[in-house]
Amino acid sequence: MGYAPSALALVPFISVENMMRVVHATGIERFLAELADYIEQDFRRWQLFDKTPRVASHSREGVIELMPTSDGEAYGFKYVNGHPKNTKEGRQTVTAFGVMAEVDTGYPVLITEMTILTALRTAAMSALAARYLAPEGSRTMAVIGNGAQSEFQALAFRSLVGIDRLRLYDIDRSASERCRRNLAGRGFDIVVCGSPEEAVEGADIVTTVTADKQYATILTDNMVGPGIHINAVGGDCPGKTELHRDILLRSSIFVEYPPQTRIEGEIQQLAADHPVTELWQVFTGQGPGRTGRDQITLFDSVGFAVEDFSALRYMRALIGKLPYYDQLDLLADPDDPRDLFGMLMRAEPQPA
Amino acid sequence: MGYAPSALALVPFISVENMMRVVHATGIERFLAELADYIEQDFRRWQLFDKTPRVASHSREGVIELMPTSDGEAYGFKYVNGHPKNTKEGRQTVTAFGVMAEVDTGYPVLITEMTILTALRTAAMSALAARYLAPEGSRTMAVIGNGAQSEFQALAFRSLVGIDRLRLYDIDRSASERCRRNLAGRGFDIVVCGSPEEAVEGADIVTTVTADKQYATILTDNMVGPGIHINAVGGDCPGKTELHRDILLRSSIFVEYPPQTRIEGEIQQLAADHPVTELWQVFTGQGPGRTGRDQITLFDSVGFAVEDFSALRYMRALIGKLPYYDQLDLLADPDDPRDLFGMLMRAEPQPA
Repeated sequence: MGYAPSALALVPFISVENMMRVVHATGIERFLAELADYIEQDFRRWQLFDKTPRVASHSREGVIELMPTSDGEAYGFKYVNGHPKNTKEGRQTVTAFGVMAEVDTGYPVLITEMTILTALRTAAMSALAARYLAPEGSRTMAVIGNGAQSEFQALAFRSLVGIDRLRLYDIDRSASERCRRNLAGRGFDIVVCGSPEEAVEGADIVTTVTADKQYATILTDNMVGPGIHINAVGGDCPGKTELHRDILLRSSIFVEYPPQTRIEGEIQQLAADHPVTELWQVFTGQGPGRTGRDQITLFDSVGFAVEDFSALRYMRALIGKLPYYDQLDLLADPDDPRDLFGMLMRAEPQPA
Repeated sequence: MGYAPSALALVPFISVENMMRVVHATGIERFLAELADYIEQDFRRWQLFDKTPRVASHSREGVIELMPTSDGEAYGFKYVNGHPKNTKEGRQTVTAFGVMAEVDTGYPVLITEMTILTALRTAAMSALAARYLAPEGSRTMAVIGNGAQSEFQALAFRSLVGIDRLRLYDIDRSASERCRRNLAGRGFDIVVCGSPEEAVEGADIVTTVTADKQYATILTDNMVGPGIHINAVGGDCPGKTELHRDILLRSSIFVEYPPQTRIEGEIQQLAADHPVTELWQVFTGQGPGRTGRDQITLFDSVGFAVEDFSALRYMRALIGKLPYYDQLDLLADPDDPRDLFGMLMRAEPQPA
């Protein structure tokens, strides 16, 4: 056939296997730290971003979302689904992939798996927020909910904050044991706890990252002492929260993007005008972070498109240095741009 | 490395090269006819579709859009850009790719190039509309604007409507000559004309498909005689029209989806409540098509997400029969869905 794709036709693609190769070649803790740097850079130029709301398609079993954003030079979007019943069929609750394109030409320049990358960016975002908000010298973190995100959180907090003691709790003890096994040999002192109350004992930081889609009370008010930082990751969609409302009322609350967090985050339990601080304000010094020893700080994490954009941007930089990607023949590129049909016809197989 | 993607991790991918193979293996006219059948089926179950507005990201040079829709079982979206200045740099004005997913699991089941596929579906849609609207026994079509879409239009109209005489006009005569060359040997009687007025002489159908992004008047009122069908393809975004307003006022106007066409189509020139008929109504017999010999019918084509959905659905059916696709390792699929981190760690290269 008379067709050979030109360079303009090809778009780099990072498969699951290559994503794992990139992470290992970089080192996971370094990867998390560099990814956090990219997120921090993008939050510091917050005003540049076109913050389009995500486009959700809801069904009985779940949701499919497109999350686009742009900084004026690059455009990125993530496709992500959320289907809680998937795990019963041996599938992931959440899978994702992402695309980055040049704004100037509209041409895609990267397609990548984002299931693993989202787990990494969620953890990097949490640890980045904690670097500004957690008490100084934090070493002990409780992790309540030991599912797919827990190990990523632990490593990000070690890499960015210096956490080296973990207190794990999950209603399914085998999940905590698996988390402990997965983190063995990485220099953590790990205690598997029998209750959330036991887990939070002596913790500087409490991470909640449970999975049930319901209003839950993972933390009650009496479990939260003065001065701690709460990293609330699991409450991330309407109808799904983890913290008792009274905790929120005692905390200084930090969010990614208020219009989204008020719908999806822990603060869906609060009045629509309850005061919150945006993280970009903290990162640029335009808003206060932690201001006192007894203050309870709370990062109400939901995950925002700008973080995915940062992750795509980081991957694009990495594949400039590492060979772990394929080239997809995705864009039709006729010699004469007006002659798409001619390209198609010249590709017709000739009788032998 | 300890990783081999499972079947659940793999998503079929149709590259540009494989798209061309599929079209040739099927035969382009049969492909257009079958694609039109898929579109007609979907328009006949119009009420099922979730008609989300497209999500556009505008910049100085162009636009990047995501066009999602769903019929409740499958979900599809198209990524498409529009950058008129691209051709100066040897790139396409429009490139596109698409994704189809299962609503029930959120898992993508197809990724495909859509630059060629969009050209095919646009032509199939036009010809399908004409099958209901053009005068009976139509054989002669004027094609004004002989860019990348013109040959696809010609072949779709032959396949679906029986057009075998073409009258071509373009301000760039070499474009018309290229169109004539590309269609040589396909059984058309082709006349290259020196003016739009000459092109429309004796035509049963007039297709306008010019490319300039501006208000233009490709057809003036006196050029449009009674009884013809106008297939207006080129006026497809705000500020871009091809027909004089007086023509619209004399025509029975048919559209894909009024909320979108009133913004993007020829009818952006008319009052917001000017009467139009939706094509799904015509295809289901719930609305009138052509009702008289002297009636001027006008399909104000802009391209709607449901047509892309139909195209994705058709491609999914075709790769069930033809081997022209690759498998992308796109979805992380750990043995234990809760153990994404374990999968990542087991993939770590071991020291030799």
